[in-house]
Amino acid sequence: MVTDSWQKQLIYTNKIFDNLSDEELMEEVAPGRNRAIYLLGHLTAVHDRMLPLLRFEEAKYPELKPIFLDSPDKAVEAIPSARELRQQWHDVNETLANHIKNLPAEDWFTRHANISEEDFIKEPHRNRLNVLLDRTNHLSNHRGQLLLLKKKI
Amino acid sequence: MVTDSWQKQLIYTNKIFDNLSDEELMEEVAPGRNRAIYLLGHLTAVHDRMLPLLRFEEAKYPELKPIFLDSPDKAVEAIPSARELRQQWHDVNETLANHIKNLPAEDWFTRHANISEEDFIKEPHRNRLNVLLDRTNHLSNHRGQLLLLKKKI
Repeated sequence: MVTDSWQKQLIYTNKIFDNLSDEELMEEVAPGRNRAIYLLGHLTAVHDRMLPLLRFEEAKYPELKPIFLDSPDKAVEAIPSARELRQQWHDVNETLANHIKNLPAEDWFTRHANISEEDFIKEPHRNRLNVLLDRTNHLSNHRGQLLLLKKKI
Repeated sequence: MVTDSWQKQLIYTNKIFDNLSDEELMEEVAPGRNRAIYLLGHLTAVHDRMLPLLRFEEAKYPELKPIFLDSPDKAVEAIPSARELRQQWHDVNETLANHIKNLPAEDWFTRHANISEEDFIKEPHRNRLNVLLDRTNHLSNHRGQLLLLKKKI
């Protein structure tokens, strides 16, 4: 159910990104706020880092971190193109989806990568399922902002 | 874990509402979009309807539905005051929290009120836990929009 909820939010978010042209991606979600392209890069960077955090594999696009995680929007001048980011976004989510599909149910209750085995004994809620719940909320949060770009009829 | 995720999103959202004055609640999250007061009423109405949906008790403020669920923002002229809505918001969430706390873990996997016992046999994922997951994402979604009202330094 938690993985379904994750995939559902991804489908909804993709619907928004797919409906935005490359030019529209350059618009801010509200005056003075993040541009849609920054949110695309930000979400890609966050999801990419879920690969090692969930102990699946190494991050595929670590170069996104300084631009879309460590810096606010417009702080870095040269960012990847819309086309490149769209491709990376889909690649990261597909890679994640494959791992998620193949992870046995009981393994969701094992530790994520940012907690040691010793600490995990004391804090068993810091498991992989919790990472997925948290990132689903993170995604919903930004999806709500992206929705503001939807054209009014 | 799912109930913790719900409560965490509520705490984050309350922090935003508590930091907005009654005047600031009248601001739109983005030009031409919902006012914060509408989102407060909308979230209260949605959470209020979770009470019967989760088979806890009757909705406490059914009068919010026509204003904040069936109508878009600014369609209804006479809406409850900010003070009244803030009180109802806290009341509904507290009522929910008490029921949630007391529901035995296994009961989360029983049907919600909008599905019959017959259909539930075929679709067991339409349970109470799924309602909570879905409403947590709904809350995150609007919280992301409310965050846009946070004053820039």
